[in-house]
Amino acid sequence: MTSSHDSSPSELDDIEYRAAVVDLLGVLAYGELSAFQRLVADASMAPNVSDMVALSHMAVAEFRHFERLRDRLRDLGADPDSAMAPFRSAIDGFHRSTSPSSWLEGLVKAYVGDGIGQDFYTEMAAFLDAETRDLVVDVMADLGHSEFVTDRVRSAIDADPRIAGRLALWGRRLVGEALSQAQRVAAERDTLDPLFVGSPGRPGMGLGGVGVIFSRIIERHTQRMKSLGLSA
Amino acid sequence: MTSSHDSSPSELDDIEYRAAVVDLLGVLAYGELSAFQRLVADASMAPNVSDMVALSHMAVAEFRHFERLRDRLRDLGADPDSAMAPFRSAIDGFHRSTSPSSWLEGLVKAYVGDGIGQDFYTEMAAFLDAETRDLVVDVMADLGHSEFVTDRVRSAIDADPRIAGRLALWGRRLVGEALSQAQRVAAERDTLDPLFVGSPGRPGMGLGGVGVIFSRIIERHTQRMKSLGLSA
Repeated sequence: MTSSHDSSPSELDDIEYRAAVVDLLGVLAYGELSAFQRLVADASMAPNVSDMVALSHMAVAEFRHFERLRDRLRDLGADPDSAMAPFRSAIDGFHRSTSPSSWLEGLVKAYVGDGIGQDFYTEMAAFLDAETRDLVVDVMADLGHSEFVTDRVRSAIDADPRIAGRLALWGRRLVGEALSQAQRVAAERDTLDPLFVGSPGRPGMGLGGVGVIFSRIIERHTQRMKSLGLSA
Repeated sequence: MTSSHDSSPSELDDIEYRAAVVDLLGVLAYGELSAFQRLVADASMAPNVSDMVALSHMAVAEFRHFERLRDRLRDLGADPDSAMAPFRSAIDGFHRSTSPSSWLEGLVKAYVGDGIGQDFYTEMAAFLDAETRDLVVDVMADLGHSEFVTDRVRSAIDADPRIAGRLALWGRRLVGEALSQAQRVAAERDTLDPLFVGSPGRPGMGLGGVGVIFSRIIERHTQRMKSLGLSA
């Protein structure tokens, strides 16, 4: 919190930068709220109560993240609903087009889909003022999805190796849909541009940076698929 | 907590009473877990993000209640899944047969349906050892459903008075289904009997008591319907 006094007042006085931060917190907040909704729905497909509780527990943690992002939006003087509005159709569209038809598909989505989002926003955090950065890194931290999902998916593949092919296809579809929606948002919203361009004292991502970040995200995605026992 | 040292060690040493408490905590725990699931699902029908968040917030509080009940079951040396198992089909059946088809039906269910459960278990709490009683009263406390639901339902009826009749029918159906499932559980499970019979130092409910309690529950239900602007 002390870091905010060092850096953010001047940063957040920049109107365009502030609008970019509000946009970023808006997309993150609606993303967490939707993740909460969707994880709880997927939890109802759990094979037993313990697994349902485990997934619900993660969902509740996502709701807490949503609350922190919403509170931060209010602190910045922004209306949370308005900040989330521009991203609703893209995020809802992503979830509609990737609605899991089984418990395992839901697990892979929770891990692989959320993983890409987490990597992307954590990379973006490097270009933010200290206070916003700390919040973003915090809410994007792994909630225990990895261990839980890896365990359940690997056991299922051990028991029936034939499902690996179908789940691998599912993983690829998740990436495709995620990138397609992200591209749509990027094309429609130019308020996030200041994060790419940067300002004195705050480096921008730059076009080259975007390429490097993109490769890192794909690499980590491949690692996640591998850890599930799936080919990316 | 100090009260537990005064009364519960001797109470909970009684094997039959202890089994009754485990059963009671089991039905409550699964009830809260299902309420959480169902409220989150109903929240997706909200007309706007703020209302969706408000209902999700209540749902998360139900999940916290579930966690407290589950932890208490573990403290008593019981396996939470086994304790919940006997009540799953009745509770799932209730939710299946009362799946709301609109946001307003979901709200009425959250208020009227949960209200009956809360009243019933709070009445039962009087016949429990102090520590269990405190926990039950705590997790059955109103989570802000009342104010939120009353406000939303009354506004909707003000805007279109014709919906009052349909919602009143819905409220009656909720009571009917709740009582039918409760009766089924009561007929199948005799482990709860010690709560009705009582023991030295802990009064039982008694048959007359059940009647009095039943009238009080129906009376409060009527009041809740009235506060929504509906005839019971």
